[in-house]
Amino acid sequence: MDAAKRLNAENFVFFNPRDGYQSVLQRQFFRDMSHMAQLYRMAAQYRDKIGFRGQLLIQPKPADPRRHQYESDAMSTMHMLRHFGLDKHYKLYIKPAFARLTSRPYEHDVYMAAAYNMLGCVDASDSWPEFNGTSDICAQDMRDATLVMKCVLEQGGLQQGGFTLGGRVRRESTEPRDLFHGHIMAMDTFARALRNAARMISDGSFSRSIQQRYSSFKSGFGERVEMGNMTLDDCEDFVRKNGEPLHQSSRHEHYENMFNYYISPPRQ
Amino acid sequence: MDAAKRLNAENFVFFNPRDGYQSVLQRQFFRDMSHMAQLYRMAAQYRDKIGFRGQLLIQPKPADPRRHQYESDAMSTMHMLRHFGLDKHYKLYIKPAFARLTSRPYEHDVYMAAAYNMLGCVDASDSWPEFNGTSDICAQDMRDATLVMKCVLEQGGLQQGGFTLGGRVRRESTEPRDLFHGHIMAMDTFARALRNAARMISDGSFSRSIQQRYSSFKSGFGERVEMGNMTLDDCEDFVRKNGEPLHQSSRHEHYENMFNYYISPPRQ
Amino acid sequence: MDAAKRLNAENFVFFNPRDGYQSVLQRQFFRDMSHMAQLYRMAAQYRDKIGFRGQLLIQPKPADPRRHQYESDAMSTMHMLRHFGLDKHYKLYIKPAFARLTSRPYEHDVYMAAAYNMLGCVDASDSWPEFNGTSDICAQDMRDATLVMKCVLEQGGLQQGGFTLGGRVRRESTEPRDLFHGHIMAMDTFARALRNAARMISDGSFSRSIQQRYSSFKSGFGERVEMGNMTLDDCEDFVRKNGEPLHQSSRHEHYENMFNYYISPPRQ
Amino acid sequence: MDAAKRLNAENFVFFNPRDGYQSVLQRQFFRDMSHMAQLYRMAAQYRDKIGFRGQLLIQPKPADPRRHQYESDAMSTMHMLRHFGLDKHYKLYIKPAFARLTSRPYEHDVYMAAAYNMLGCVDASDSWPEFNGTSDICAQDMRDATLVMKCVLEQGGLQQGGFTLGGRVRRESTEPRDLFHGHIMAMDTFARALRNAARMISDGSFSRSIQQRYSSFKSGFGERVEMGNMTLDDCEDFVRKNGEPLHQSSRHEHYENMFNYYISPPRQ
Repeated sequence: MDAAKRLNAENFVFFNPRDGYQSVLQRQFFRDMSHMAQLYRMAAQYRDKIGFRGQLLIQPKPADPRRHQYESDAMSTMHMLRHFGLDKHYKLYIKPAFARLTSRPYEHDVYMAAAYNMLGCVDASDSWPEFNGTSDICAQDMRDATLVMKCVLEQGGLQQGGFTLGGRVRRESTEPRDLFHGHIMAMDTFARALRNAARMISDGSFSRSIQQRYSSFKSGFGERVEMGNMTLDDCEDFVRKNGEPLHQSSRHEHYENMFNYYISPPRQ
Repeated sequence: MDAAKRLNAENFVFFNPRDGYQSVLQRQFFRDMSHMAQLYRMAAQYRDKIGFRGQLLIQPKPADPRRHQYESDAMSTMHMLRHFGLDKHYKLYIKPAFARLTSRPYEHDVYMAAAYNMLGCVDASDSWPEFNGTSDICAQDMRDATLVMKCVLEQGGLQQGGFTLGGRVRRESTEPRDLFHGHIMAMDTFARALRNAARMISDGSFSRSIQQRYSSFKSGFGERVEMGNMTLDDCEDFVRKNGEPLHQSSRHEHYENMFNYYISPPRQ
Repeated sequence: MDAAKRLNAENFVFFNPRDGYQSVLQRQFFRDMSHMAQLYRMAAQYRDKIGFRGQLLIQPKPADPRRHQYESDAMSTMHMLRHFGLDKHYKLYIKPAFARLTSRPYEHDVYMAAAYNMLGCVDASDSWPEFNGTSDICAQDMRDATLVMKCVLEQGGLQQGGFTLGGRVRRESTEPRDLFHGHIMAMDTFARALRNAARMISDGSFSRSIQQRYSSFKSGFGERVEMGNMTLDDCEDFVRKNGEPLHQSSRHEHYENMFNYYISPPRQ
Repeated sequence: MDAAKRLNAENFVFFNPRDGYQSVLQRQFFRDMSHMAQLYRMAAQYRDKIGFRGQLLIQPKPADPRRHQYESDAMSTMHMLRHFGLDKHYKLYIKPAFARLTSRPYEHDVYMAAAYNMLGCVDASDSWPEFNGTSDICAQDMRDATLVMKCVLEQGGLQQGGFTLGGRVRRESTEPRDLFHGHIMAMDTFARALRNAARMISDGSFSRSIQQRYSSFKSGFGERVEMGNMTLDDCEDFVRKNGEPLHQSSRHEHYENMFNYYISPPRQ
């Protein structure tokens, strides 16, 4: 951390894939997690002591080399931070490819972290989507990357630092130019994704659709529920007076169609 | 909940597999989770109002029918509860088979919930271990079940309620006796597991091994770290004086061997 | 099959997800597969008897409802057909989404079936890529679909029939127009894929790169190996005279970059 | 192979995890597989030339380091061998843990290879069941191992060679005795499995149940179908005369219960 301060580092990452378990038989989970919390407490303290102004980040990973890593994903890590009172000092460094390891979409943990205002940094790499393992391929899927960029833009960007390029060329790509192609592909993928996401946001079609979808929370009964002022009895009264809410279609296919329009605009 | 009170129910379960998303494009995650929190707040309030004394439980599930369910697993659900100040009112109802859906061991969420003192109830069923899906087979693997029972015994049991039998016979098991065989198999599996776990605990070999493993936290520097009284500078001083800690083997294979001894004692 | 003949059906599909096993304890694999072969033999015989000219197809699926389905994927099914002497009468009806269930890429079984000249028909639907299950979403990923179309075009198309639309709208898409949007999205996805694939093929960049990659098999020693005229001793002599072959980069990243160019041409 | 001959090796294994593809864009599947067939043809020829009497084996693996390995599993490999006329010369060396990578049960490929009389050798190791990756743990699950041993015993054993121990201790098991514990655990697991399987077979309860299950193929119409003497018209006549066959329960839960009895006989 002294070195980070001297280098004016914007972020400082903790990545602890060995802090987990191989078997429930030989670990005490809560005790292990509280020990990690002690490290984080001390690190935050030390950062204040030396006046380092970088953002402390934790990078979750589900497993490997351990059978399970405690800081498994965004929600697990945020739970640990919150439980031990450390959430003010840390944010998450999300590698979207890791979400695939727990059978979640590429963009999932980016959105989860952002939902709790804990998204600090993103790794612009990928893993083969069909396989439960880290293949660390250079980012290539602009569709998935666009969803990531949309989330980042909507939260006003990443306050410190940015995206890191974490992919690796394949074992049998043995020439120096392969490394260039890999990095160019990853950068292009995320640059194109940024443009797509910016257009999606500025056109406003998604936000209009979503606002329309949540409109019942804007006023009246729905607003009061959202504010926390209602009881179950109030809900019952409402339904007795107004009947059950009409079910509205989520229009999933409509959203996906719109999305495809931005990913690949029609052409000749 | 009125019915639950009249029936003197020990537990009341919330299971919300439809509260999740199909696509990040058409949901506002935090808003959705805060709405769920409102429901829980109102439900806890209502329970107090009517004087229902059952334990409110939430059953996590990773996905299906949604692409992702917000209350995905133990840590996600506990994070939501803690974030919205509801963790005093709710515990978790863990279906171990669901952990397999996120590529975690059968017993994983039982241990995670218990680590945070949030384990309320357990579903004694299983899913085929190799497949990412809910097959709801009748519990049959005594090895996995033993790990679950060990955790339950070590936390002093389940305070209210107990285990539920949730398995289903296969589609092509068409006779009434098949249902009996399935339930008997599940009950035997968990009963044998209980016995194994009880023996493992009363023999003390695992707890001795674990205490030995964590012994450096029992006194001196390790104890002070655990208590939260140290700084990184203190750690540095310690290492300068005493050198780096000696790495000790985790003896994973030794633990697994011991475990197999309890699962299947030697015989002629 | 009589009905199929009267309707002038181009294809006739066998889809046997219940022919598999729940447990190795209660099945005789080879016997079961030979019984299926009898059904296929009799069906082919009946087709000839009534003069039905449609293509008999088998649709593989890895599992569900059984724990494993014998006709699990392209290679398993082709092995069964070849072993029982039925490969002249049957081709495969590939649902690419099913490849994801065995952790293979979407396009995998399309290419495998085509490699052995057994690709009869394709289902234009998808499943969420990260999850091991059939979610039957309407096809939306043009990148994956393009790889499928490239294979179909390169084999000269599908001789009889074509593509079937097999996706389903989501549970919460409850309006009739959602069904239209879903089908339009699937059709657009594959139509765009067809155009991309046609451009990729007519531009010739991929075929040039691949020919260059396999060039050592075009003449000399490589050609004789491919023709089946060499022995290990010949190989040894060749290496003694000429040294070990120089390793050439597979240039994977270059191919993926080119591919992205066709999927998403640069724009302002 | 000269060395193998001098050592009197019982088996000679081909393991080709690099023969596969990273992307369908840069390989010609059939051509690649035919090249592998040339290697196998030349190797079989050479074996005959030098008079090596060991069994030539191929070890399938689904993927890694490639995105997909051509010799992916038992059925894929057997299809390749049969297609290229090499099945007389080769058998399979099955590592059961690899079946988990394609979401199949541990014992699956052992049974598939044995079904086609192609099981040559077995690797007595395992991988964590919930995760799609090779963790190479020392075999520990006697239940899964028993299913493997039952298959091996029922085919009269492995003609040449035997089982290999392929597991690795965990990264944090750093003492020499850990290696002993790991190997002892694997050997015990398979030894116990052998005993369980021998008892299951000699007691005859499973074979009786299975014979009863397949009894309709023993005589009459069923026997003639199995012999390949029937047509669909014959089937139709049979049903018109005798009605639809009565559906019988597969009694899956009964079989699993019996199995558990052998894995863990009741005790005080």
